[in-house]
Amino acid sequence: MNAAEYVAGLHKLRRKVYIQGELTASPMEHPLVRPSAAAVARTYELQQYPEHEELIYAQSHLSGERINRFTHIHRSADDLMKKVKLQRLLGQETGTCFQRCVGLDAMNALEITTFEMERDLGTPYHQRFNRFLQQVQNENAVCDGAMTDPKGDRARRPHEQADPDLYLRVVSENREGITVRGAKCHQTGALNSHYIIVMPTLAMKEEDRDYAVSFAIGADAPGLIYILGRQPSDRRKMEDDPLDRGNLYFGGQECLIIFDNVFVPWERVFMCREHRYSGRLVERFAGYHRQSYGGCKVGVGDVIIGAAAALAEYQGVAGASHIKDKLVEMIHLNETLFCCGIACSARGCAAASGTYLIDLLLANVCKLNVTRFPYEIARLAEDIAGGLLVTLPSLRDLEHEEIGPLLKKYLQGIAGIDISCRLKMLRLLENFTLGPAAAAYLTESMHGAGSPQAQRVVIARQAHLDHKKNLAMKLAGIETGKEG
Amino acid sequence: MNAAEYVAGLHKLRRKVYIQGELTASPMEHPLVRPSAAAVARTYELQQYPEHEELIYAQSHLSGERINRFTHIHRSADDLMKKVKLQRLLGQETGTCFQRCVGLDAMNALEITTFEMERDLGTPYHQRFNRFLQQVQNENAVCDGAMTDPKGDRARRPHEQADPDLYLRVVSENREGITVRGAKCHQTGALNSHYIIVMPTLAMKEEDRDYAVSFAIGADAPGLIYILGRQPSDRRKMEDDPLDRGNLYFGGQECLIIFDNVFVPWERVFMCREHRYSGRLVERFAGYHRQSYGGCKVGVGDVIIGAAAALAEYQGVAGASHIKDKLVEMIHLNETLFCCGIACSARGCAAASGTYLIDLLLANVCKLNVTRFPYEIARLAEDIAGGLLVTLPSLRDLEHEEIGPLLKKYLQGIAGIDISCRLKMLRLLENFTLGPAAAAYLTESMHGAGSPQAQRVVIARQAHLDHKKNLAMKLAGIETGKEG
Amino acid sequence: MNAAEYVAGLHKLRRKVYIQGELTASPMEHPLVRPSAAAVARTYELQQYPEHEELIYAQSHLSGERINRFTHIHRSADDLMKKVKLQRLLGQETGTCFQRCVGLDAMNALEITTFEMERDLGTPYHQRFNRFLQQVQNENAVCDGAMTDPKGDRARRPHEQADPDLYLRVVSENREGITVRGAKCHQTGALNSHYIIVMPTLAMKEEDRDYAVSFAIGADAPGLIYILGRQPSDRRKMEDDPLDRGNLYFGGQECLIIFDNVFVPWERVFMCREHRYSGRLVERFAGYHRQSYGGCKVGVGDVIIGAAAALAEYQGVAGASHIKDKLVEMIHLNETLFCCGIACSARGCAAASGTYLIDLLLANVCKLNVTRFPYEIARLAEDIAGGLLVTLPSLRDLEHEEIGPLLKKYLQGIAGIDISCRLKMLRLLENFTLGPAAAAYLTESMHGAGSPQAQRVVIARQAHLDHKKNLAMKLAGIETGKEG
Amino acid sequence: MNAAEYVAGLHKLRRKVYIQGELTASPMEHPLVRPSAAAVARTYELQQYPEHEELIYAQSHLSGERINRFTHIHRSADDLMKKVKLQRLLGQETGTCFQRCVGLDAMNALEITTFEMERDLGTPYHQRFNRFLQQVQNENAVCDGAMTDPKGDRARRPHEQADPDLYLRVVSENREGITVRGAKCHQTGALNSHYIIVMPTLAMKEEDRDYAVSFAIGADAPGLIYILGRQPSDRRKMEDDPLDRGNLYFGGQECLIIFDNVFVPWERVFMCREHRYSGRLVERFAGYHRQSYGGCKVGVGDVIIGAAAALAEYQGVAGASHIKDKLVEMIHLNETLFCCGIACSARGCAAASGTYLIDLLLANVCKLNVTRFPYEIARLAEDIAGGLLVTLPSLRDLEHEEIGPLLKKYLQGIAGIDISCRLKMLRLLENFTLGPAAAAYLTESMHGAGSPQAQRVVIARQAHLDHKKNLAMKLAGIETGKEG
Repeated sequence: MNAAEYVAGLHKLRRKVYIQGELTASPMEHPLVRPSAAAVARTYELQQYPEHEELIYAQSHLSGERINRFTHIHRSADDLMKKVKLQRLLGQETGTCFQRCVGLDAMNALEITTFEMERDLGTPYHQRFNRFLQQVQNENAVCDGAMTDPKGDRARRPHEQADPDLYLRVVSENREGITVRGAKCHQTGALNSHYIIVMPTLAMKEEDRDYAVSFAIGADAPGLIYILGRQPSDRRKMEDDPLDRGNLYFGGQECLIIFDNVFVPWERVFMCREHRYSGRLVERFAGYHRQSYGGCKVGVGDVIIGAAAALAEYQGVAGASHIKDKLVEMIHLNETLFCCGIACSARGCAAASGTYLIDLLLANVCKLNVTRFPYEIARLAEDIAGGLLVTLPSLRDLEHEEIGPLLKKYLQGIAGIDISCRLKMLRLLENFTLGPAAAAYLTESMHGAGSPQAQRVVIARQAHLDHKKNLAMKLAGIETGKEG
Repeated sequence: MNAAEYVAGLHKLRRKVYIQGELTASPMEHPLVRPSAAAVARTYELQQYPEHEELIYAQSHLSGERINRFTHIHRSADDLMKKVKLQRLLGQETGTCFQRCVGLDAMNALEITTFEMERDLGTPYHQRFNRFLQQVQNENAVCDGAMTDPKGDRARRPHEQADPDLYLRVVSENREGITVRGAKCHQTGALNSHYIIVMPTLAMKEEDRDYAVSFAIGADAPGLIYILGRQPSDRRKMEDDPLDRGNLYFGGQECLIIFDNVFVPWERVFMCREHRYSGRLVERFAGYHRQSYGGCKVGVGDVIIGAAAALAEYQGVAGASHIKDKLVEMIHLNETLFCCGIACSARGCAAASGTYLIDLLLANVCKLNVTRFPYEIARLAEDIAGGLLVTLPSLRDLEHEEIGPLLKKYLQGIAGIDISCRLKMLRLLENFTLGPAAAAYLTESMHGAGSPQAQRVVIARQAHLDHKKNLAMKLAGIETGKEG
Repeated sequence: MNAAEYVAGLHKLRRKVYIQGELTASPMEHPLVRPSAAAVARTYELQQYPEHEELIYAQSHLSGERINRFTHIHRSADDLMKKVKLQRLLGQETGTCFQRCVGLDAMNALEITTFEMERDLGTPYHQRFNRFLQQVQNENAVCDGAMTDPKGDRARRPHEQADPDLYLRVVSENREGITVRGAKCHQTGALNSHYIIVMPTLAMKEEDRDYAVSFAIGADAPGLIYILGRQPSDRRKMEDDPLDRGNLYFGGQECLIIFDNVFVPWERVFMCREHRYSGRLVERFAGYHRQSYGGCKVGVGDVIIGAAAALAEYQGVAGASHIKDKLVEMIHLNETLFCCGIACSARGCAAASGTYLIDLLLANVCKLNVTRFPYEIARLAEDIAGGLLVTLPSLRDLEHEEIGPLLKKYLQGIAGIDISCRLKMLRLLENFTLGPAAAAYLTESMHGAGSPQAQRVVIARQAHLDHKKNLAMKLAGIETGKEG
Repeated sequence: MNAAEYVAGLHKLRRKVYIQGELTASPMEHPLVRPSAAAVARTYELQQYPEHEELIYAQSHLSGERINRFTHIHRSADDLMKKVKLQRLLGQETGTCFQRCVGLDAMNALEITTFEMERDLGTPYHQRFNRFLQQVQNENAVCDGAMTDPKGDRARRPHEQADPDLYLRVVSENREGITVRGAKCHQTGALNSHYIIVMPTLAMKEEDRDYAVSFAIGADAPGLIYILGRQPSDRRKMEDDPLDRGNLYFGGQECLIIFDNVFVPWERVFMCREHRYSGRLVERFAGYHRQSYGGCKVGVGDVIIGAAAALAEYQGVAGASHIKDKLVEMIHLNETLFCCGIACSARGCAAASGTYLIDLLLANVCKLNVTRFPYEIARLAEDIAGGLLVTLPSLRDLEHEEIGPLLKKYLQGIAGIDISCRLKMLRLLENFTLGPAAAAYLTESMHGAGSPQAQRVVIARQAHLDHKKNLAMKLAGIETGKEG
C-alpha cells in the first residue's frame, strides 16, 4: 500500500462518525480530519526514500518479507532503537502525532502475551493473533490500539461502577464469538485506522474478569460510533485560507469510540476473561508506548527548537547570549528525552516468544520525563518568540488594501527576510504551544500512554529498593539491619 | 461612571478598527471584543459591593474625592498593597486580564517623572499631567498605557533602524502641538479605553531623542488605527452557542495600534525629546507593572487551582495523595507570586513627588517568577484534569438525539454530580491552559511588562553586588581584596 | 547586657555538657562552641551601631522601655517586618545561624496562647508568662526555644511509643510545681542560652495530655544534660591555625538536651496538660519561625552570592555571560525568599492579645521555598567556584618552605589579587556549601521550623480550596456543582 | 595483578608527597589515602567474582588476551555499554569515585587521536602509544589521566598568562625526549596510579603550540610533586575510631601534581606541539569521561537512595506517601542519568582506528544532567533523613558510661531495629551529602570532566540547528527563509 492507496482506502470505509454535533458522511474530507490522515500517510510516503529505507522497512519474523516497520514485531534491541529513530524522523517530518505507533505497540504487547497465554492455558490465542498479524503485515494496514476506558468514578474498580459499561466488557458470548459493550477514550488517529485493537485498561481481578478482554475488529464493524474530540484552535483548520493555520499540512485527531454491542468472532479474540494476564498486557503495551514518546516527541521538539531559532534570527536576537543559552537548554532537554528512548531500547531483552521488550523501568523513566520537559521546551520557545505569538493580527490583514502595507511596515524584522517568514513562523510556534499541536505536544505528553502517576507506580515497583538498601548497609557496616 | 455607562460610552467612540481583515463599524458588539470589555466593566461593578469598598475606592490626593482606585496615585505603601489585593480579586472574578492596570501604572510612573522634569527643567510637564489626571479621575476613565514599539531589528537602536518609524517618534511640531508616527504592539484592552497614554519603550540616548516622547490622546483621535490580534481558539467565542467557550463571560484582547501622523496638543504632551528622563519613566512604569502581575495573575491562578480541585472531585480522585500534593504545589507557587507582589509594595518608598514607588528590585523578582510559575501551575492543572482536556467532544454533541445519551452515559464521573459540571469545568481549564485565556495567563505572563531578560538586567543592576562581596570578604578575613 | 557581659555570663553557668564523648567543664572555651557564642554576641554588639538602632531596638509593650528586639513582642506589622530585616542583617554579619530567633518566636507564640488559655480557663498562664517575659527583657537574656522531641517511631503518637519518654512529658506534679522527663533534639544555640523554653512538638489529643506542656527553666537547672551534635568538618574548628576554617569568626551549634526528671516551679509553667491549646501553640511558633527563615537565610545567601561573585572576579571570569547569569539567578532566588519573609509580615494581624501574628499561609509558603532555593543557590555557587572548592590543598601547605612558593605560583588567579584572597574565599564557600555552615544553610533550611511536609500540611489547610472552586464554577457557569 | 599485589606495589613507589603541610614518606598508609586506594583495589577484587566476569574482563584488541576492562580499548557499542554498567556496579560497591576511569578514557581518546596523527603526519605517535598500552594491559596497571591546568587568569589564553607555566608546556627537547613544566589540578586518585598520562586542557592555537603536548610517565618520575587536597570532613578519617566516618571502607582523593621540569623520553610522547589535534583529543577524552559519569554517579546514587530508604524504615515513615514519592523521584532522576550513559554508548560509532567513540552530543547531555540531578537527589535524601543528619552526637557518646544509655533511650527509632543501624546510616548519608563523599558526588559531578558551561558549548556545536530550522520552515510553508 502506498500513501495514495492508503487515503483512498479510508474513503471507502462506511462508519458512523460525528463531528461537532453532526453525523458526517465523508469524514476523511473534513478539514479537521484530513491533516491527521496526511500525517499517517507520511508513514507510507517514507517508503519511497532510499535514505530512510533502513528505518521504515523491517523483515517480518513470520514471513521473512520486507514490511513497513509499523507492522513489525521487534526481534532485537536494534529493532527497538530503529523504532525510536523512525519515530523521531516522523515527528520531525510532521510536527505532530503520526498515530501509527499505538497499533504497533499493541501488536508487540499482544504477541508476547498471547504466546504466554497459549503456552500456559492451551487456548489458541497466539495462533489467532499471528494470523491477524500476518494480515496486517500483508496489507500494510493501520491499527488503532484502544486501551483507555472512560472509568467513571476513578475511586472504584470496574464492577463497582454505577454503570457496568464504564469499562468495556464482554456482555455475552456464543459459538461464533463474543459481544462487547463500552467505550474507549482519547483514540488518537481512530478515523485513520483500518483495524481497532482493543485491550483492557488495567490489571483486572477475578471479580472484573469480564473486563479482561482483547480483540481486533475492522474499523467499520457494526455498532462502532466515532465522536471526534475538539482541539484548541480547531476552527483555524476550518478557515477558508490556511494563513493562520501554523502547520500547513499535518495535524492530530482524537475520537471517543463507542462500542454499542459490537460482535467479535473468536478468530479475532486474543484474550477473553483471562484476568491474570491482563496486568502484564497493560504493562507491556504501556511500556512500549512510553518508549515511543522518547522518539516522536523528540522529533516534534526538534521542529520547535528550529522554529524558535529561526524566529530569533528573523527578529535580530540570534546573537544574544541569553537566547543562545535558551536554545541550548531546549536542545539539552530534548536530547535527554531521546537518551531515555534509546536507553530503554538498547537494554531491551527477549521475552519468552523471542520478541524484544524494552527495559520497563527505563521506559517509564522516559515517559515521566516526557510529562515535564516538553512543557519547559514550549515555555522557552515562547520566551524566545516574544509576545507577538499571541497578539499577531490575522494574516488576512496583511492582504488588506489599507492596512496590509501598514502591517508590513510595522512588523518587519531584520533586513533581508521577508515579513511572511516571521509571521508564518510565529503561527507555527503558536500552533505548537497553544494551538492544536499543543494538544499532542503538551497534554498528550502528559497523559498519553498513561498519566505521570502511572509511571511513578511502575518505577517504584521496578526499582529494587531492597538491593539498594543492602548496598548502603554494606558501606555503613550494618550486618543484618537489626543488629545487636 | 458605572458599568452600564462605561459600556454605552465605548459604543459611541468612532474609531478605525480592523478585525481579521475587515473594517468593523461596531467593534464593541463583536464577539471577540465584548468579553474583554465585560472584564473592564467589572472594575466598575465592584463599586457596588460594600465588602470591596476599601479596595476599589481610594481618596484622590488631588481633589480629596473618593475615586476608583484604578485612577489613583499611590500615596503610601498601604495603597500599593491594596492595589495588589484589588488585582487579585479581579483576577479571581474575571479569570482573565481586566486591562485597567496598564493605564494606572502609566499614570503613576508619569506622575513621578513629570514632577522631576518640571522641577529640573521648568517645562510644565507636571502641571499638564495633573490636569489630565484630574480629568481621568473625574470621569473614572479607562486609559491604555502604550509602551512597546515594534522594534524591527532588535540588534539596532531606534535611529539605526532601516525604517525610522519602527519606534514611535515625533515627526514634527508647531505652536499647537506635536505630530507623531509609529505603532504600539500588544495593546491589551486598547478598544476598551477612553484614552491612550503613550510612553517610550526604552532608555533613549541623545541620537534617539525624537523617540523620547510621552503624551495622552483620546481613543478616537484621528490617525489612530486599531488592528485586533488573534488569540488561540478565538473562534470559539464566535460560535453560536457558548458551550465550548470555557469562560462564559470574560476574555482578553490585544491590538496593534498604528499612529498614522497623529496630532497631540501641547497640553497633553508629558515628555518631549527629554531622552535623559526616558529611562526612568520606563523603569518606573515597568516596575509598577511587574508588581501588578503579583496580583492579577495570582487571582487567575486561584481560579485555575479551583478548577483543578473541582475536576479532581468530579472524577473521584480528590482523595488521592498525589492529587492533593499537586494542588498544594499549585497553591504554594501561586502564593509565592503573591508574596512577591505584596513584598515589593510593603517596601515601597516615596519618590520626590510624594508618590509611592514599589521596591524596584523586588518588583522585578516578582515578575521573573511570573514568567515561570504560571507555566508550572498550568502543567499541574493539566496533570490533574486528565487527557479529556484535549479530546472532549463538542458540548453540542451532548444535545444530539442519538449520541447525546451515549456521551452522558460514558462521560459520567462520580455519582451525584451532573455530567455538565465536569464538561464545563474541562472547557474552563482548556481555556486557561491552551485557549484564549492562556494568552493572558501564560504568554502574557512571560512577556507582559517586559520579557524575562529585561527583569534580569534590572535585578543585576539593583543587586548591590559589591556590598555582598564585602560581606564575604569580612567573614573570610580578607582586608582589601588585593592584599599582600 | 553587652556582648562582653553576655559571654562572661555564660562562662559562669554550671551545666553538664558532653562534647564528643567527654564531660566538658568549660564548654564556652571549646573551639566547637566559641564561634557559635560569638554569633549570638553579635546580637548584642549591634546595639552599639547607631545605623542599626531602628532594627535592633524596640519599645517593650510591657514596660515602655527600649529593649533588644530579640526580646520583643510584636505589636504591629511593622514590628514583624523589622524582625525580618534584622535577621537578614545578622545573617549577613555572621554567615551563620545567630540562634536568638527561636526564643523570640517561642515567646511571641506563648504570649498569644497563654492569653487565650487564661481568658478561657482562668489559669494564670498569661500572668506567669508576662512576669517571665519582663525578666527576659530586663536582663536582655537569650532563650532557647525547645520544641522537637525525639519521636521514636514516627508512625505512632506519643502515648503509643514503646518508651513513654520519647516525647517530653509531665511525670509528676505537687504543690510547688511539676517534674518533666524527655529530651529535645536539634537545640540550636542551646549552650549559648540563659533560659530554655519548652513547648510541645505537635497538637496533642486527650490521651496525650501529659505531653501538652510548656515552661521555662534556667539553662543550668538540675537534671539538664547537654550533648553537642557533630557538624560536617567540625574538626576544622579544632585545628591549631584557622587557615582552613572558612568563616573565621562565627559558627553554629546544635545540642541534644536531655531532661532527666527536671523540676519546674508553677510560676514558670505556661501550659500544663492543656492539649486543646497545644496545636495552636505549635502552629504559631512554627509560623513565626518559618517567617524567620525569610530573613536569616537570605542574609547568609547574600554572603554566598558575594563569595561567588568575588571568586569569579579573582579567577578572571566575572565578565562571562553565563557567570553573570548565574549570579542573577542566585540573587533572584534569594530575594524571592526575602519577599516571602516580608509578605507574611506585612500581612500580619493582631491576635486576641493584641500581639501581631504573621500570615500563617504565607509564612509556610516562605519556609517551603527555603527548603528548596538555598540548595540551588549553593549549587550555583559551586558551579561558579570551580573544582578547587574540594581539591584545594591545606592552606598550611602555602607556608611550607618548598611547596609554598610552588603553590603560590600555580594557584595564582588574575593579576593584582593576592593568592590568599582566592584561597580564603574558596574556604569560605566550602564552609557554606559542604562544611559546618552547610548544616545551617542547607539541612537546617530543610528541617528547621519543621520539615517540608509540615509546611505542605499547613498550606493545604489554609488554602480555602472551596472558595477557589466557587470562583471556577462561577466562570464556567456551574450553579450548584451538582446541577441537573 | 590482584588487589593485594596492587596495594603492595603502590607502597614501593618512591614519590614526593605532601599532605597538609608535611612531606609524607609512606602516603599509602595515611588514613586520608588508604580508603581511596581501597576503592581502586576493588577494581581488582571484582576479577574474582564469576558473576561480574562479563563486565570486568574484556578481550584485548592488541593481544587477544583477557584483560581488565579498565585497560581496554572499546571495539563496539556493546563495549561502551559494558563500561557504563561496570562503572555503575563499582559506584554501588564503593559509594565513591574508584578513580580508574580517567586513565581508561585517556587511553581511548589517545588511541583514536594518535592514529589520526600518525596517519596524517607520519610521526609514530600511534605505534608509541600502542606499545605503552600493551604494557598497561600486561601489567593491569592504573593510569591517572591528567588534563586540567591551573589556568591562572581564565580570560587569557596560555601564552597570554603572566606566568607561562600556568598551563603545562614543553620547555625544551633533545634527542632523548622532552622536558615539561607546569601543573595538573584535581588529579583524582593520583597517588593510586602507576602511570600519569598527560593531555592538553583545551584546543590550542598556533601561538600555544608548546602547550599541545601529551605523554605518559611513571608515577615516580623525578620532578613530580604531589600535594593532597583537602576534602570536607577529611579529619573524620583521621579519628581513632571509625564510628563517625560514614563509609567505613572507601573514600576519594584529589592531588595537585606539579611537574617541576620533568623529562619524558620520546617513546612515551604521544603528541608534541600538534596544536591542530589538541582540540579533538580534549573533546574525545571529555566525551568519554562525560559518558563515565552516567555510570559511576548512578551507582553512588543507588547507595544514597538505599540509605534514604533504610532511614525511612528505621524511623517509621517508610509508608508515608510523601516519602515514597520522594524515593520515586530520586530513582527517576538517577535512572535518567543512567539512560544518558547508556544512550551515548548505544549510539557510539567507530572512529578511523576502529575504536568506538561515544555519541558526543549525548555524552555531553549526560554530563550536563549530572551537574544537576545528584544535587536534587542529595536534597531529597536530606529531606527524608531528617535534621539528625547534622545534629547527631558523636557515636563515641554512645559508648559513654553515663550518657550512652540515655542516647540509646532517646535516639531509638522503630522497635526491632538496633539503634546503631539508624546512627550508622545517618553517618553514611552525612558522608554523601555534606562529607568527603559529597566532594565526589556533588562538586565533582559539577566540575569533573568539565564544568557545565563546557558541556553547553559542545551541545550548541553538535546540535545541527540549521537542520532543525529547515524542518520548521517546511511545515510553516517557508521556502527560502528570505522569500518575497
